[in-house]
Amino acid sequence: MHIFVINSGSSSLKYQLFRWPQEQPLARGLVERIGLPEGQLTHTTLLPDGQEHTVRHTLPIPDHRTGLEQAMRLLTDPETGVLPDPADVQLVGHRAVHGGEEFREPTLVTAEVKARIRELFPLAPLHNPANLLGMEVAEQLFPQARQVAVFDTAFHSTLPPHAYRFALPEELYTKHGLRAYGFHGTSHQFVSQETLRYLGQPDARVITVHLGNGCSMTATVAGRAVDTSMGFGPMNGLVMGTRAGDTDQAIIFHLVEQLGYSLDDVKNLLNKESGMLGLTGHSDMRDITRQLNEGDPRARLAYDLYAYRIKKYLGAFLAALNGAEAIVFTGGVGENDALVRQLVCANLDFLGIQLDDTENARRAPGIRDLSAAGSRVRVLVVPTNEELEIARLCAEMEVDQ
Amino acid sequence: MHIFVINSGSSSLKYQLFRWPQEQPLARGLVERIGLPEGQLTHTTLLPDGQEHTVRHTLPIPDHRTGLEQAMRLLTDPETGVLPDPADVQLVGHRAVHGGEEFREPTLVTAEVKARIRELFPLAPLHNPANLLGMEVAEQLFPQARQVAVFDTAFHSTLPPHAYRFALPEELYTKHGLRAYGFHGTSHQFVSQETLRYLGQPDARVITVHLGNGCSMTATVAGRAVDTSMGFGPMNGLVMGTRAGDTDQAIIFHLVEQLGYSLDDVKNLLNKESGMLGLTGHSDMRDITRQLNEGDPRARLAYDLYAYRIKKYLGAFLAALNGAEAIVFTGGVGENDALVRQLVCANLDFLGIQLDDTENARRAPGIRDLSAAGSRVRVLVVPTNEELEIARLCAEMEVDQ
Repeated sequence: MHIFVINSGSSSLKYQLFRWPQEQPLARGLVERIGLPEGQLTHTTLLPDGQEHTVRHTLPIPDHRTGLEQAMRLLTDPETGVLPDPADVQLVGHRAVHGGEEFREPTLVTAEVKARIRELFPLAPLHNPANLLGMEVAEQLFPQARQVAVFDTAFHSTLPPHAYRFALPEELYTKHGLRAYGFHGTSHQFVSQETLRYLGQPDARVITVHLGNGCSMTATVAGRAVDTSMGFGPMNGLVMGTRAGDTDQAIIFHLVEQLGYSLDDVKNLLNKESGMLGLTGHSDMRDITRQLNEGDPRARLAYDLYAYRIKKYLGAFLAALNGAEAIVFTGGVGENDALVRQLVCANLDFLGIQLDDTENARRAPGIRDLSAAGSRVRVLVVPTNEELEIARLCAEMEVDQ
Repeated sequence: MHIFVINSGSSSLKYQLFRWPQEQPLARGLVERIGLPEGQLTHTTLLPDGQEHTVRHTLPIPDHRTGLEQAMRLLTDPETGVLPDPADVQLVGHRAVHGGEEFREPTLVTAEVKARIRELFPLAPLHNPANLLGMEVAEQLFPQARQVAVFDTAFHSTLPPHAYRFALPEELYTKHGLRAYGFHGTSHQFVSQETLRYLGQPDARVITVHLGNGCSMTATVAGRAVDTSMGFGPMNGLVMGTRAGDTDQAIIFHLVEQLGYSLDDVKNLLNKESGMLGLTGHSDMRDITRQLNEGDPRARLAYDLYAYRIKKYLGAFLAALNGAEAIVFTGGVGENDALVRQLVCANLDFLGIQLDDTENARRAPGIRDLSAAGSRVRVLVVPTNEELEIARLCAEMEVDQ
């Protein structure tokens, strides 16, 4: 059978098609600038010999339905398509950002489930409406398939109360849901599972460090999350491309009361103008690496802040877990930026972490062990694959039923 | 000579008188409810035989000057006073909360210094005005004495940029001073110095855990601060009596946008209605201990949250320092609450911390070592004494000149 995975944003839609149970990716694509005058569709066919074939189309894409129809046209193209018949898709997996406290497992999309996702809009006002839209469009295009929602918050639903509660009046939790939900759950889940398999230790304590454009860390025991760096929303914790991560609540009041910001200005500042962008003028680590090589002290400080924040969360999670069998870097930066890994792991031998600098500096695909001999905690790189994890979770659900 | 130490708040004034260089406290007191219909003065004389004699007066105290005059009347009383002549006071040490980036050392109070403290009002709108008021009143009552300001932020002025900077646009730091300043500096300084002396290791790495009504932690190397849990204001970091400590910035926006709070409501919530009070209905740990003994699950959760936050900062600072020779509990809760220390130190043997449960449960005065044999990191209790530290810093400054 085939599984089609959709990640629907407010003006974009990512997709990937798998042949199952081979876990074989056949094609993937990205529809961008939906609703804008010039939409863009980038579609990549993954050829059996390992090569990729990518086409880019610029065309008006007024809505998500049109975007997905265009993608389907390429997928089912008689000459270059990889999907002879859309009816071969038996499962559609949807990334859904916020499942509140309710959705802790992959969930069959029904009218009732869609109504509940709508009720959760206040918790994820940007993401959940877009996710729901993706589901509704997919129901029309794949009427024969089972639609499954995989919630980004689900993996962190196992956090214990001392990790997910804030020191706020109780009714803000019980009535209004103010707690840590955690994000990037699908990535942390995939990477921690891959790590347990790689180690051959199903009960291992693993700290996953997801460093992409968004960044977060999760502490796991036997594949279950016990703490994470993101909380109620996706803006706290590590320093990110444009998000500040942890600052100080008092700054928000100061910006409004003393410096004349509106609250919207502050929100925009913390989400869009801070992080690496605020420190260096760039949000992409490759640009900042270039800046660093040119000797720009702003890039040096930004790298130091970025790595130091990760280092502190590592220590915090090692305390929470009383040690770990492995720490794992993943995501675009985590998988590729040797300097970040080096700065994070430097001077951590007291905590049992020692990096092999040569192995760290080497570029290679797949799962890699970067630990020095004698490191009590293994340091790994495990490439993430959120689409594959969504497909796996959908397929497992199918088996369970 | 005599040193008089003043800690002036908006409606209160604490003082302590020392004979110097004996470091002998002669009397201490607290003026409360200044400006309210019924003021209160609590004055304690410390007798040479170790006994204390306390008197309480309820009387109108319209302003700080009247309060200090009343205290002086008791201090110089011909029968019960301990200070024959106010002119014997050669130094007056003032606790000043916010010294910005400028005041990194104890500073002689001059007209220029007072003007700078006034310019720092926006950074500490509640505290700096009250501190300045205390200085002006003391100048009138002790015209012969040298007035010295000891800034609560000074001890943390040694933080490196990766610890004090936030991932915000650079000009918010350079133009508007948005950085971590740290607080409770005088307590962390006193306790870390006492610890270095006790250990006989002047270069030791020490993590000080100040748990009073306000709570904060500081990582030090050879008595110099390298990181701290409080940042730009005194509301972040550990869970406190009524302050939430770390939450998530997104909560502030959610409270305003979705739940109809004003920003002032949110500020009040995070400062006055959260922390242990928000979780249990009580802000005093002794009340919460009673609640816990009665089996109230709210008290259990509150203790767990309180201790878990400290545990995570311990791990973070152990990562920052690459280990430590000692962690030190201080402040009313840190010195007296064995359960908090037990919960914090439980399951930290991977990080080299092992508590001796029997020693921890015992109540005793003075500096105490609570570590189990074999603990790589020593766990100490060191009683804090901010007034004595202020007096010491003033006296040292006097010698240096």
